Amino acid sequence: MSALKPVRFVDVSLDGHFWRERLETVLTRTIPSQHVQLAKHGILESLTLPNPPPPLRIPRNQHNFTVQVFWDSDVGKWIEAASYALSHRRDDDIEAKIEAITDDLEKAQAPDGYVNCWYLQREPDKRWTNLRDNHELYNLGHLIEGGIAYFLATGRRRLLDILERYVEHVRKTFGPEPGQKRGYDGHQEIEIALIKLYHLTGERKHLDLAAYFIEERGRQPHYFDQEAIARGADPKAFWAKSYEYNQSHLPVREQTKVVGHAVRAMYMYSAMADLAAELNDAGLKRVCEVLWQDVMSSKIYITSGLGPAEANEGFTVAYDLPNDTAYAETCATVALIFWAQRMLHLDLDGRYADVMEQALFNNALTGLSRDGEQYFYSNPLDSDGSHSRWAWHSCPCCTMNASRLIASVGGYFLSAGKDEVAFHLYGGISSTVELNGTRVSLKETSTYPWSGSIAISVDPERAADFTLKLRVPGWASGATASVNGQTVDVGSATQNGYLSLKRKWHPGDKVALELPMAPERVYAHPAVSKDVGRVALKRGPLIYCVEETDNPGGTVQQLELPRDATIEATPRDDLFDGVVTLTAEGTRLTDNGWNGQLYRSDPPAREPVRLTAIPYFLWNNRKKGTMQVWLSEA
Amino acid sequence: MSALKPVRFVDVSLDGHFWRERLETVLTRTIPSQHVQLAKHGILESLTLPNPPPPLRIPRNQHNFTVQVFWDSDVGKWIEAASYALSHRRDDDIEAKIEAITDDLEKAQAPDGYVNCWYLQREPDKRWTNLRDNHELYNLGHLIEGGIAYFLATGRRRLLDILERYVEHVRKTFGPEPGQKRGYDGHQEIEIALIKLYHLTGERKHLDLAAYFIEERGRQPHYFDQEAIARGADPKAFWAKSYEYNQSHLPVREQTKVVGHAVRAMYMYSAMADLAAELNDAGLKRVCEVLWQDVMSSKIYITSGLGPAEANEGFTVAYDLPNDTAYAETCATVALIFWAQRMLHLDLDGRYADVMEQALFNNALTGLSRDGEQYFYSNPLDSDGSHSRWAWHSCPCCTMNASRLIASVGGYFLSAGKDEVAFHLYGGISSTVELNGTRVSLKETSTYPWSGSIAISVDPERAADFTLKLRVPGWASGATASVNGQTVDVGSATQNGYLSLKRKWHPGDKVALELPMAPERVYAHPAVSKDVGRVALKRGPLIYCVEETDNPGGTVQQLELPRDATIEATPRDDLFDGVVTLTAEGTRLTDNGWNGQLYRSDPPAREPVRLTAIPYFLWNNRKKGTMQVWLSEA
Repeated sequence: MSALKPVRFVDVSLDGHFWRERLETVLTRTIPSQHVQLAKHGILESLTLPNPPPPLRIPRNQHNFTVQVFWDSDVGKWIEAASYALSHRRDDDIEAKIEAITDDLEKAQAPDGYVNCWYLQREPDKRWTNLRDNHELYNLGHLIEGGIAYFLATGRRRLLDILERYVEHVRKTFGPEPGQKRGYDGHQEIEIALIKLYHLTGERKHLDLAAYFIEERGRQPHYFDQEAIARGADPKAFWAKSYEYNQSHLPVREQTKVVGHAVRAMYMYSAMADLAAELNDAGLKRVCEVLWQDVMSSKIYITSGLGPAEANEGFTVAYDLPNDTAYAETCATVALIFWAQRMLHLDLDGRYADVMEQALFNNALTGLSRDGEQYFYSNPLDSDGSHSRWAWHSCPCCTMNASRLIASVGGYFLSAGKDEVAFHLYGGISSTVELNGTRVSLKETSTYPWSGSIAISVDPERAADFTLKLRVPGWASGATASVNGQTVDVGSATQNGYLSLKRKWHPGDKVALELPMAPERVYAHPAVSKDVGRVALKRGPLIYCVEETDNPGGTVQQLELPRDATIEATPRDDLFDGVVTLTAEGTRLTDNGWNGQLYRSDPPAREPVRLTAIPYFLWNNRKKGTMQVWLSEA
Repeated sequence: MSALKPVRFVDVSLDGHFWRERLETVLTRTIPSQHVQLAKHGILESLTLPNPPPPLRIPRNQHNFTVQVFWDSDVGKWIEAASYALSHRRDDDIEAKIEAITDDLEKAQAPDGYVNCWYLQREPDKRWTNLRDNHELYNLGHLIEGGIAYFLATGRRRLLDILERYVEHVRKTFGPEPGQKRGYDGHQEIEIALIKLYHLTGERKHLDLAAYFIEERGRQPHYFDQEAIARGADPKAFWAKSYEYNQSHLPVREQTKVVGHAVRAMYMYSAMADLAAELNDAGLKRVCEVLWQDVMSSKIYITSGLGPAEANEGFTVAYDLPNDTAYAETCATVALIFWAQRMLHLDLDGRYADVMEQALFNNALTGLSRDGEQYFYSNPLDSDGSHSRWAWHSCPCCTMNASRLIASVGGYFLSAGKDEVAFHLYGGISSTVELNGTRVSLKETSTYPWSGSIAISVDPERAADFTLKLRVPGWASGATASVNGQTVDVGSATQNGYLSLKRKWHPGDKVALELPMAPERVYAHPAVSKDVGRVALKRGPLIYCVEETDNPGGTVQQLELPRDATIEATPRDDLFDGVVTLTAEGTRLTDNGWNGQLYRSDPPAREPVRLTAIPYFLWNNRKKGTMQVWLSEA
């Protein structure tokens, strides 16, 4: 296991424009507007008990189910995101809003500690009767994460106290002892939260409860069967047909294939990686590695989207990666970032950081509009022009996953151990870490991801021995580096994707790292049927797409990129806050001469066009229109 | 309007192997097995009233709707198909089965004539309260068609009498007069049946009622709004969101775009074409022509499948023709054949016959397996191997559409008028028609669609003047013909796709028609995004596909056809009952050297392969596997 731990986001200053802009947008626009939406959609009101419950805002679906049962989690996630904002700068208004929510939860809490506003208000006698579907533990998990973040930001612990009492109730209710329910969560999440609570409090019982939930999952007799029978339902009538849906089809240690609902899967794997680290559990680590290999070899979009299917919001079979109907839920990719970061701290291996970065820059950032108030829930790689961000979503899970991720994104850049510090991401940050008892100021300057020219000043308060590790991304072939102008042999000094600079560092030392960012063509494995004959464009960590507004004259699906066309990287200060576009001489199929025919024997004529591609994460921020990532290669 | 009328199927003998085999399969296997399925699935039992209704076999869906309300129609369609079988040869067992159904309907019929087994058994006080969703008139329509077919086959008219009494009840109930409901059918069909009843009985009132339903449709105030309010429902809560779904969004004469549920649309257009003919209504004919042009220019698959979307089982926007998710319901294409035949009898124009033929050979024949007992409901043009025919379907509409079409397919070959006879289809038939008072025996000999060499012997009982019209399909460029060995100038003698041979015919005259059947490449309009860079293969009227069993070594989606590859037609006596395959030198993307990677910068390697394509209608009759119609063109 790696001895490194992430440097917390509060200790990493985002100086570069790229991330500073996203962070400021989230702090000033996204988080306040999310509170407005929570109020507007009745989610805040749902916390106020007792009262006669108002009619359902979200009608039950064909499975007699309403996403309204998750609302507590949305509140928890907003508190978490808003508390990260408070960590950046205190704000009385936000604190008052969180305190008001805390008032509601405090009033709602049952004498035994239980707090689930759906059940307390609507079905008080049915609590803990349907863990499979109704998300009580998931909701608690998100509330715990919110409570921890709020406490860390403000020192206020009333919310956390409420939740710790609820956790005690959960601990009494669930477990292997006589009189306890041998249950676990239908939607994994609480495990991550309990491990965070363990980190905060040092109380081992929280780690143990997380481990119990993970280890109990999928054992026979199956809890969800027993629970269904107990409430008078037919276990076989489970709407999702298979317990693969919630990854309880097998005990977790027997799982080798990534299946089911993608967000559930990623949260579970994150918790498993956490447990593997905390318990130094090589077996559980190995399970994580096998699952990682399964998803990375056959079940992830090039954008890092996960889960092709809407039906289960999740995984299907290997290589099934349709572009236009890709579900690729934003939440799933955010959760992949959580998992990747945890894998990276099991083994400092650049392949985890590569995925973490690509997930961050592509499918996760895509979820939030430039103005910070519109969201993608699903992230197709091909659009006929009808797909567009939502101002809100009936199931708003993705909205606060975007804001809580970006509000704390500094936490993914650096890790530090006793005598080493590692850079995973670049983009202009500064931080101070303590290595071997010496405080070391680090300042990384770059316009990454637009440029791969990275300058790092290393300023120990006094000369000191330690190792500086710099990630050399898998795509950056031909990377070069120097220390104080002296060239470093990157090839020999790089292991598992990290350039290791071990030396006595002096105040004012300068490191330069040059990551070549030539535009690249990327091809998919031939078994990905929807990408046969197609090519994607990539530069650095960014996946590109062609959008109709840059390529007028028809749909972008009519464009073709010749195999021998030169792809040029073009800085464009006039687009957004400045981007690098990719351009190439391509062709467009024209509809000249078709005269109302739908099919004919002559192939369509082609006309030359200059193709312009933008980073995928920026699409749908201007005019609505067609888009695609995988271009026909002529 | 054309003066031609179709020659009834009972007057056309199918001598050629191609259609004889399909007909025999339907007569000996499909129709008997369908009765077994109707019994097995409770559909026959549902006719037996009164009894305490058994639990629903088909649970209500999220719209509180069960397809069980259509069951009367399934019975009607089976009676129709089975009666066509009786027209080929009487069968006591089938007649006894139809008589038993007639007994049930006779017992069920209310004193006022109403017979709908769903309502009479389950919701007797709710009849005629939800025409929009619950298909009473649709069911009656199919029963009428069954009753007519049974009467024509056997002379037995007890069933028809029951249905005529029911029609009288409907006529009293619906109409523009005070005290009548100004309603019409939510699923069009009864109009076709009423026009058939008019043809049978000569009673104008049936034609008038069909015209009323068509003309009333979509008028304001909207009947489905009023009906919803009357039953205490919110008209805006219509689950399909728009009355485009059932083509009642506008009065039919104002409709210019093909929208909504595809089967509803096709049945309605068929009835409109019938009315245009019967009433010599040029305005209604023009509406049909505009709708025809809309669907043919942008909304039909190359297989003649209609309706890309599962959500509405129907049409979306122009050029939206996804291949893997194509709904392309078998019923819709069967109904397109009905419409095309009616358009063809408004104007003898080969473009209608071309569509009729392509629909018949491709998407309609596809619906029934070789063994005659398995069915496709939806007909995708690209399959990952998971799509397969059903032994039955919860909504078995397509099963009896396949059998009633094939059992009466002879009726699509020929039309005759006072002094002319036209061949629309070929494949080995014989018939005798009366032209100008002279009986003329016609015998067409060919192995069409495998060969385009067609020989026709024309045998008037004595020398007579009349015109023989032979369809020259749109694809048959370079067609040649001769009469008694004398070459005919096909170009100058062909008008609107029909070669017109007007002369004095003598007993023993021989006509030869040679329709060149070179394999063709077909391309889609560039706005069909899913077909960009792709090519389909066609020979004669048949669309081809590549199926995994003929192209082993991976998925067929990995195959590419070079633009310059020669496509060869290869007769294969060893496949099915003998087919012509298309073969070509192609390439396959190989997964050699990918080593667990999902994406990489090097394009996949290609290896040469011999591609084999079979007619699309034959796919999924051997092993399960991948299939596609639109090949990547390298």
